[in-house]
Amino acid sequence: MFYYLFTTLIPNYHETPLRLLDYVTFRAGAALVTSFFLAVLFGPLTVRLLKRLNAMAPSRLEGLVEAEFTHHEKDKTPSMGGLLIVASILVSSCLWGRLDNRLLLIFLGTAAAFCGLGFWDDFAKVALKRRDGIPGRVKLICQFVIAFIALYFYSHTPGAGETFRQLCVPFVKQPVWPMMPIVIAYLFGMFVVVGSSNAVNLTDGKDGLAVGCTIFCVLTYGAFAYMASHKVFAEHLDLNYIAGASEIVVLAASVAGACIGFLWHNCYPASMFMGDTGSLALGGIIGLIAVLVNQEILLILVGGVFVMEIVSVMIQVASFKLTGKRVFLCTPIHHHFEKKGWTETQIVVRFWILAGMLALFGLATLKLR
Amino acid sequence: MFYYLFTTLIPNYHETPLRLLDYVTFRAGAALVTSFFLAVLFGPLTVRLLKRLNAMAPSRLEGLVEAEFTHHEKDKTPSMGGLLIVASILVSSCLWGRLDNRLLLIFLGTAAAFCGLGFWDDFAKVALKRRDGIPGRVKLICQFVIAFIALYFYSHTPGAGETFRQLCVPFVKQPVWPMMPIVIAYLFGMFVVVGSSNAVNLTDGKDGLAVGCTIFCVLTYGAFAYMASHKVFAEHLDLNYIAGASEIVVLAASVAGACIGFLWHNCYPASMFMGDTGSLALGGIIGLIAVLVNQEILLILVGGVFVMEIVSVMIQVASFKLTGKRVFLCTPIHHHFEKKGWTETQIVVRFWILAGMLALFGLATLKLR
Repeated sequence: MFYYLFTTLIPNYHETPLRLLDYVTFRAGAALVTSFFLAVLFGPLTVRLLKRLNAMAPSRLEGLVEAEFTHHEKDKTPSMGGLLIVASILVSSCLWGRLDNRLLLIFLGTAAAFCGLGFWDDFAKVALKRRDGIPGRVKLICQFVIAFIALYFYSHTPGAGETFRQLCVPFVKQPVWPMMPIVIAYLFGMFVVVGSSNAVNLTDGKDGLAVGCTIFCVLTYGAFAYMASHKVFAEHLDLNYIAGASEIVVLAASVAGACIGFLWHNCYPASMFMGDTGSLALGGIIGLIAVLVNQEILLILVGGVFVMEIVSVMIQVASFKLTGKRVFLCTPIHHHFEKKGWTETQIVVRFWILAGMLALFGLATLKLR
Repeated sequence: MFYYLFTTLIPNYHETPLRLLDYVTFRAGAALVTSFFLAVLFGPLTVRLLKRLNAMAPSRLEGLVEAEFTHHEKDKTPSMGGLLIVASILVSSCLWGRLDNRLLLIFLGTAAAFCGLGFWDDFAKVALKRRDGIPGRVKLICQFVIAFIALYFYSHTPGAGETFRQLCVPFVKQPVWPMMPIVIAYLFGMFVVVGSSNAVNLTDGKDGLAVGCTIFCVLTYGAFAYMASHKVFAEHLDLNYIAGASEIVVLAASVAGACIGFLWHNCYPASMFMGDTGSLALGGIIGLIAVLVNQEILLILVGGVFVMEIVSVMIQVASFKLTGKRVFLCTPIHHHFEKKGWTETQIVVRFWILAGMLALFGLATLKLR
């Protein structure tokens, strides 16, 4: 928005410091700082509002579980803090992004849709006292529908969607499958987006864990988007050049800023949780950026912590069904380490370290081709 | 070392993947990973050895304070973990750096000297039961001597020392003082190195605080060193081109890796502390890199958390002496927030967030000139 405002209002903006608006790096930096401060400053207000939302909900049950609720009310940390994250992302991206960019609109819409789905789920848990929120099948179908719509619009975006059917692999210069059948491309894309969304959701079980790992992940993919949007770099690094990806850099920076700001309130002991409201949206955005820059396979590495969490659950379930034995003491895997005696802070910081190191490896693949 | 080993042993290494050794980015990445794993894997062994070192010490006192010691022994977290950090840095830098590089040798020597001084101090605290270790004045004089020797060798290094007398300021393309008198240049350089060393030392009062902030700081200065060592980038960004700075990138990466690895053991509740052994060396290295890339003033921003800690102490002391009133509840400032009710993890994570954001600002100054 600022881009249009100033470049339109001030004809000779090129001679003023406003020429910085031409640089995507500047707008990305500004977006990161903006969403960071939005998330930090509106944190306390959000906590108060969410507590009211939580408190309001059970009145509908007309005293059914009132006794239990009164007990919990005081020390209950409100969920649905993801509203703050997504709101910060939307505001900051709109301020610093170029809203005529089709890709940016697709991403913002997807983030809002996943956020809405997550909110529905969280609210069902709180208000209707359903332990698992909305039924798993309904949630999954909604996720696939959102992912499909996002991919549909993306694949029809000129200058970006042409590479939708390519399958690229790290360390290999050329696409390993230059033209996937359209059905496989859609299924693969949806799997990445929905899988990433659910993986972040599963990881969100310790104060600051998911949001911290998301910071590293989204910064890495933001760097990929930047390289892809820069003709010289893209050619030099054998990436597909995607003209409009520059605005996705601004979006990724907003996401990183919002996550850093949210972490301020979410570090142990958290004053609010992001809930599905936040985790589905963050995971969805990461997955969608991975599809956009054709680095879906790399997400296994860069989002390694999320993958580890979701795979630990799969292994546990499979092993228990097949052999009757448990591989881990408890899953998702952060509970395993908890039972091993790690403190909450140790689990979280060590998983961050892992996420940070994996992000560095991911960035290194840019050059190692 | 690897560089010589392989480039000498394998004549046609340019046709093998070993040609990667020509890239400083590859060697820096490898150095980071190496020192990370060294610090993580040798952590438990170090903890055992340090506990023995701590336990051994009081026997010299011949039972004087034995009762008190027995009480503390169990839950006492060993200090002097900085030995692990500095050892990881030295080994990793020697493996991946080019040891004919004069700058690298100066930095490694300085790190070892500061580490030795810190060890003397830590050991005096433990072994001689002096609460404050060696006397403050002796420590300060030693620090200035080490800094002077380092600066002397640096300023006489061809291709790097020529800019020693320049004073550069962020956001300004040309040096604001192109030729400082030699005495001022030395005093200024020593002030930066010793100040940085003591600032990190003061910050080291919460589990993971100092080492985490160091990671951001040293990565930022590593990036500056990289830009300065690259002729095209240096010219483009109006930095002084310093041919040999490439090996300082490798060193900075080793420092970052060692700190990340040490954080694994140092996060709350810490299994060891770095002590003066680590903090003096880390602060000294950061200060020396700042002098090398002529970005001393920027250290106020990039090392903002360290500056905040040391300035809070100065303000407190000055205010108390002048007006008899205290400005903060307690200093260094992390104790102030502790008294305000923040938990250890909240203090540490929020200070990291601050350090990370300041590091991003610092990087941004590269382009904003």
